[in-house]
Amino acid sequence: MADLELSDLHGSLTDRALNSMNFLNEVSHHYPEAISLAAGRPTEEFFALEDLHRYLDLFAQYLRDQGYDEAAVRRTIFQYGRTKGIIQDLVARNLAIDEDIHVDPEAIVVTVGCQEAMVLTLRALRAGHEDVLLAISPTYVGITGAARLVDLPVVPVGEGDDLATVLKSVRAEGRRPRACYVMPDFANPSGLSMDLSARRRLLELAAGENLLLLEDNPYGLFPAEGHERIPTLKSLDMSRRVIYLGSFAKTGLPGARVGYVVADQTVGAGVLADELSKLKSMLTVNTSPVAQAVVGGKLLANDCSLVAANRRERAVYAANLQAITDGLATRFPNGEITWTVPAGGFFVVVTVPFPVDDTLLEKSAHEYGVLWTPMSHFYDGDTPINALRLSCSAVTLPQIDAALNRLAAFITDQLVLSDGT
Amino acid sequence: MADLELSDLHGSLTDRALNSMNFLNEVSHHYPEAISLAAGRPTEEFFALEDLHRYLDLFAQYLRDQGYDEAAVRRTIFQYGRTKGIIQDLVARNLAIDEDIHVDPEAIVVTVGCQEAMVLTLRALRAGHEDVLLAISPTYVGITGAARLVDLPVVPVGEGDDLATVLKSVRAEGRRPRACYVMPDFANPSGLSMDLSARRRLLELAAGENLLLLEDNPYGLFPAEGHERIPTLKSLDMSRRVIYLGSFAKTGLPGARVGYVVADQTVGAGVLADELSKLKSMLTVNTSPVAQAVVGGKLLANDCSLVAANRRERAVYAANLQAITDGLATRFPNGEITWTVPAGGFFVVVTVPFPVDDTLLEKSAHEYGVLWTPMSHFYDGDTPINALRLSCSAVTLPQIDAALNRLAAFITDQLVLSDGT
Repeated sequence: MADLELSDLHGSLTDRALNSMNFLNEVSHHYPEAISLAAGRPTEEFFALEDLHRYLDLFAQYLRDQGYDEAAVRRTIFQYGRTKGIIQDLVARNLAIDEDIHVDPEAIVVTVGCQEAMVLTLRALRAGHEDVLLAISPTYVGITGAARLVDLPVVPVGEGDDLATVLKSVRAEGRRPRACYVMPDFANPSGLSMDLSARRRLLELAAGENLLLLEDNPYGLFPAEGHERIPTLKSLDMSRRVIYLGSFAKTGLPGARVGYVVADQTVGAGVLADELSKLKSMLTVNTSPVAQAVVGGKLLANDCSLVAANRRERAVYAANLQAITDGLATRFPNGEITWTVPAGGFFVVVTVPFPVDDTLLEKSAHEYGVLWTPMSHFYDGDTPINALRLSCSAVTLPQIDAALNRLAAFITDQLVLSDGT
Repeated sequence: MADLELSDLHGSLTDRALNSMNFLNEVSHHYPEAISLAAGRPTEEFFALEDLHRYLDLFAQYLRDQGYDEAAVRRTIFQYGRTKGIIQDLVARNLAIDEDIHVDPEAIVVTVGCQEAMVLTLRALRAGHEDVLLAISPTYVGITGAARLVDLPVVPVGEGDDLATVLKSVRAEGRRPRACYVMPDFANPSGLSMDLSARRRLLELAAGENLLLLEDNPYGLFPAEGHERIPTLKSLDMSRRVIYLGSFAKTGLPGARVGYVVADQTVGAGVLADELSKLKSMLTVNTSPVAQAVVGGKLLANDCSLVAANRRERAVYAANLQAITDGLATRFPNGEITWTVPAGGFFVVVTVPFPVDDTLLEKSAHEYGVLWTPMSHFYDGDTPINALRLSCSAVTLPQIDAALNRLAAFITDQLVLSDGT
């Protein structure tokens, strides 16, 4: 039999980052009865099958309005297409309207979700063994995983670390920082945002240090009640310092798996997007035109504004986030534990006086019927982390109430146990 | 400005394989008036927008028939899903019906086209610097490109080479052949097929040499008039020696970008598909469920038989292939040039007494209005190749007639020129 040993396969397969993602996916399948404050999926409240049909029709009509005959309409949606995509013009309009980001559609590559955008970008930037990626820590596991796939080490930049100091020490070791990955708005997993002056300082530092910034922005459209959106790094970037990683998973339609990258840095006579497109031609050839048509149709249905398209979703997430932080305050009035009160997005981080690992998660799922995410998954290395992440996006208010009761019982029992040891 | 030099990016970007693909895509955009005997796209004759709607509805109904309630139907199509996919059971039924391949759906990973299946497989197999991929030469550029993305060298196995001898010499150099890539049915670009006994010998050799085979089969459903299909390697494989790379681009719907890999080799307590799925969770997370639903609906519409679904397409390709080989015979009756007469598929290789390069292709496009593909793109290295590839798939019979007139004029003029030098 032609069977294989794990040790004969690529090293990433035994890596913590990939197994993290897998463990987190599987644990929810093992405990289907548990309420999940783990899932970062968008709300399902407004999904409607008829929208798929409507979006496809709207996109076809848009092509006709552009002068396509019926054969060209069919060809565009059914056939292989340009590797860069078929909706870059609509994405560019969306970025102008919602984000005040103004780019040539030719600087955009439409990708299979934001994950492929990350892989393409890191694949392009990883030229040699000395190359590393910096990433604000705790870090989204998807970027760590993408880096593993292209054999690119990730150097964490902790909350207390000074980026300039980290850069200096990395360079002193003969390593070359190719970019720094940041999620300035309601980050996954920390829930934290950078304020405007921090953004400006980061751009200045990046310019001074000749560093690229990879800005990932899946949650920016979802500020909490009473909070305003802050301009993205890319909209403040006057010197093509920022590669912008875009996702429609939370704001468009997760099942389309359509994202994009804005890469307007010049390379030779073209732009970085041209080079990413060449890599994409060997990775996925192109992003499903059918899926792009669905997302294109949703953009068209909303005059290219996803802020407009997501008013109801924004209200759901804002109410849920409030319910989680209020609910924690009611259940833990005496400061036994602490939590973040984010200005938006999906995630609240709860800090507890005991280390939180996968064994505790399984206990919580099995004995208490509530799922959450150990923060340790978002850090490199084996240091125990006394925190867990709650997500507000894929639950209803009654579910949040029940889940917080279960979580409170679990934490209270753990506090007793950890006091006793 | 944060601009970049090509020399600072990954080496694949200056590689022939990636630039080949790019050049070939672009040349057709530069000469839209030329008739293309270059494109390997499927025929557009039977595309119908209403099919998309019908397929989506059929798949939704199938989920209901499986006991899904409406919320679960919506969730399956709209939400992120299992990384392995949502249509593996339908793919497994299709393989059983059309290919006599019988595999557990859990050994299947649905991918973003066959290209992602290649990248996942090569990424898993490329563990160290000593690893290489063998590939029957001339070779599909997509596999060469995928190998470049994961820094895996490709060792060509020429038509006259003995695979066992190549294996021995590769191993003697301290390199480790992880697999051999083959397209046994109507290969791209050669058009050639392996007969049944050659398939059995290859499986035997692979078993004796402990070599995995990567079988790629995009064209197997399209035998020419008077030819029968030959069993795939995977259907003959009794010892999990074959990783089967599947595509729906030619038989399903290219715009869905859905393919798959069958990887039933055991790895630890699971199968290789589990490991490929872990890699996929960091590459594209999952294949668009919307796109999978469309392909699933097409399978359901045809009782999971793509042989049945493609009767009209098979007839078109068979007639076109015949028209090309007959048309060449009419125009070159005196043996000035030779060509293959394939038993099916899309491709005819024409051998001429002069080297065929990209400059000649541009001349043919510009001055004669006909596009084809220099065979040199399918070989490693810079050796001049006196051959070009014609594709029969994306043209009508009148276009073939006109294109062959133009091609004959071009070749005749070149014969005169090459005689003169």
